[in-house]
Amino acid sequence: MKKVIPVIMCGGAGTRVWPASRETMPKQFIALLGERSTFQNTLLRLNAEAFDAPVIVTNHDYRFLVEEQMAQVGISGQIVLEPERRDSAAAVAIACEIAAARAPDAVVAVFAADHAVQKVDAFQALCLKAAEAAALGHIVTLGIAPTGPATGYGYIRPGAVAVAAAGVAKVEAFVEKPDAATAQKYIEQGYLWNSGNFFFRADVMRDELAAFEPEIAAAAAEAFARAKTDLGFLALDKEAFAKAPKTSIDYAVMERTSHAAVIPADIGWSDVGTWQAVWELSDKDDHGNAIRGHGVVVGGENCYIRADDTLTAVLGVNDVIVVATDDAVLVVGAQYGDKVKDLVDELKRRKRKEAREHRRVYRPWGYYQSIDGGERHQVKRIVVKPGHKLSLQKHFHRAEHWIVVRGAAEVTRDAETVMVHENESIYLPIGSVHRLVNPGKIDLELIEVQTGSYLGEDDIVRIEDVYHRA
Amino acid sequence: MKKVIPVIMCGGAGTRVWPASRETMPKQFIALLGERSTFQNTLLRLNAEAFDAPVIVTNHDYRFLVEEQMAQVGISGQIVLEPERRDSAAAVAIACEIAAARAPDAVVAVFAADHAVQKVDAFQALCLKAAEAAALGHIVTLGIAPTGPATGYGYIRPGAVAVAAAGVAKVEAFVEKPDAATAQKYIEQGYLWNSGNFFFRADVMRDELAAFEPEIAAAAAEAFARAKTDLGFLALDKEAFAKAPKTSIDYAVMERTSHAAVIPADIGWSDVGTWQAVWELSDKDDHGNAIRGHGVVVGGENCYIRADDTLTAVLGVNDVIVVATDDAVLVVGAQYGDKVKDLVDELKRRKRKEAREHRRVYRPWGYYQSIDGGERHQVKRIVVKPGHKLSLQKHFHRAEHWIVVRGAAEVTRDAETVMVHENESIYLPIGSVHRLVNPGKIDLELIEVQTGSYLGEDDIVRIEDVYHRA
Repeated sequence: MKKVIPVIMCGGAGTRVWPASRETMPKQFIALLGERSTFQNTLLRLNAEAFDAPVIVTNHDYRFLVEEQMAQVGISGQIVLEPERRDSAAAVAIACEIAAARAPDAVVAVFAADHAVQKVDAFQALCLKAAEAAALGHIVTLGIAPTGPATGYGYIRPGAVAVAAAGVAKVEAFVEKPDAATAQKYIEQGYLWNSGNFFFRADVMRDELAAFEPEIAAAAAEAFARAKTDLGFLALDKEAFAKAPKTSIDYAVMERTSHAAVIPADIGWSDVGTWQAVWELSDKDDHGNAIRGHGVVVGGENCYIRADDTLTAVLGVNDVIVVATDDAVLVVGAQYGDKVKDLVDELKRRKRKEAREHRRVYRPWGYYQSIDGGERHQVKRIVVKPGHKLSLQKHFHRAEHWIVVRGAAEVTRDAETVMVHENESIYLPIGSVHRLVNPGKIDLELIEVQTGSYLGEDDIVRIEDVYHRA
Repeated sequence: MKKVIPVIMCGGAGTRVWPASRETMPKQFIALLGERSTFQNTLLRLNAEAFDAPVIVTNHDYRFLVEEQMAQVGISGQIVLEPERRDSAAAVAIACEIAAARAPDAVVAVFAADHAVQKVDAFQALCLKAAEAAALGHIVTLGIAPTGPATGYGYIRPGAVAVAAAGVAKVEAFVEKPDAATAQKYIEQGYLWNSGNFFFRADVMRDELAAFEPEIAAAAAEAFARAKTDLGFLALDKEAFAKAPKTSIDYAVMERTSHAAVIPADIGWSDVGTWQAVWELSDKDDHGNAIRGHGVVVGGENCYIRADDTLTAVLGVNDVIVVATDDAVLVVGAQYGDKVKDLVDELKRRKRKEAREHRRVYRPWGYYQSIDGGERHQVKRIVVKPGHKLSLQKHFHRAEHWIVVRGAAEVTRDAETVMVHENESIYLPIGSVHRLVNPGKIDLELIEVQTGSYLGEDDIVRIEDVYHRA
């Protein structure tokens, strides 16, 4: 059997676990559980004999994050950039194009980048069966064996046997998210959760898309045909892709096709959609408290604390989730986890930048983080990865002092280029054309002190940029 | 009538409103309500015709804080330094010595620095009456008209009329903090709360102390007689003061003297002893939420949020207090406010520095605040008040880069002295003897980047210090 092509949907801007996740660093890139992100764990789960190298469908904004997180776990693959978000039907259509270009009957498996799977062996075994049924022409979705009457998922009613050997059934119906009583009934009747992960043959799905959503099929085909490779990324054609109507693959195909099948999956799956889900998946003490980082609970039960840097104490409160980052704190009742998105929307209405951005901002060359600010000054910590270089740039309103605290910097300042070593500094007057390079073998860390009358990030003129941002 | 000598007890290390208050910046110096500290509001309340300049009894560690907070509200007075904490009886004995040195029959009024009084006019009118009765030889305590059956205060049972014109009664009994049912009974029987603020004639209190606690009286007399003036502070003699047994003025005198009297006080008083009390005294919205700083409540009632810099959101939780500082977060159930002290003790056991210190550390010359740190570097913001100078010093393990971002610095570095202006920097190599002075008219602000193998605050050799810390 040919290898399955795994496609990971990695373009979402999930804010349901704010303030840890934000638009500029969404949920799939966060180490929600353990030390790796759910995206990285997804990569590792799919790093198995049955699978080809992964295809990552992501957003232009996340391309360097995807690249770096893949490098961290030593997995390479093809990174495809959507010029804008057009929902899952368009993304699946693109997956079909990519797979079909390799072999028309290639089996494709589509996975979300932000789900957790605790039983990896069971998952991998299940994938083999799902792929087997997909190869026969079924569109096989993973139907999760419910652990309770959840109201946050759609359900699937399994029907007649489709592929007996693989344990795959026909889908009798997809049903919407139920209320609690209906959910209980569904469970008793053997319904399964719709996980939104599925397997199909490229030609089968392509035909279904062409039949049900010809505009999407045509837009995807054209966007792929006109795609350009830039810095190793496959950038879909913007104009063509924009023609794809925005709709989910569930509506576009799954609920209409006669090929829909389901494989019951007991794989310890969670979409980690709320902080409550994170608490459920975490190790707890005798009082039901789960603590990550600098948390302390006294006289409280069933609490979750996530505090990377800030000492966070809960005293005399039960069933509460507290998440403290360096610029935002969330205190949410355990039953209100699904309202976090509404809160973030409210914060956006109030124009709070914490709703969208972290204080640490990732760039292709590393990151910067604001650590202090005043009326006429700002202090940043800048970390540049070995071999990377910032753009050649200048500012109209600010001068900069750089103090190297780790590693070595090669600094271009107007006509000269000098090396600045640990415990040395250099001054960049207003208007000077400058560039920062890390020519060394370890991270370069420096403290930047900006002074001036305007310190906005947009006071930058990029004269030349290896990351094509100029 | 001679003016009353107000004595403000300002040496406590109150941590009941941690993390806002800590040992290095206790409750009385914090702007708990409004823009000023309770100490400053106390000073302003006593800045009235009937009162002489205040005497502040404080701890050696807080002397510059007291001085600065007095300067901020434009009030001067005598600052007396206790070499160590010996509880309130010793402090009152010292107040007697100070007052008696001016006039043996001077009327003294002793106030806590960390209480709130909402009805200032009523308070001042009351003080005149209390002083009148004190001049007649009574030791008059303020008996607060209870607003509810509080279990956190001692109660006073008023007895026969003492001074009819002043509305002052004899104290029939002081009673311990009651349980809720007993408190209810006390209220029905007209008991008053013991506020711990009182008026007396210096000679009367001195005689009572000499009779009941001769060791305290003797120790105070000797510590005062041998006191030395240093930088304008009156520093009590350490050895003599240490001989005073540790006990409260309630136990030492008030519960034993036949002179105890009480004046009913309807003055909007609170000892602001818990975060719940802060919530009670704060303005609230229609849902009972009180927010100070960057707080947001969605779907919650009767919450208090204090967030000076960090966006703090409460979602779907009622009756909770959330206090976020730059290095610590407290989430406490409204009914558990009196357990904060226990939590702080627990944090001390865990050797958390946040239990004792703030990130911003006040010094006689201004403050410094740690803003970033790594393995071999640390970044601080340093603010020096106009006309102030740091000690002449050197370090064994660290070099320092100073970048001036506001004001002007006069920097001595070994043999040279140079001016460093805004947007200029200077480097201080390891071992160099240096001093920082603000010769200007506005605050000097600079960013200090330290690099080295050991960055502890104790790597400092003070060669010369205008604040006598060398």
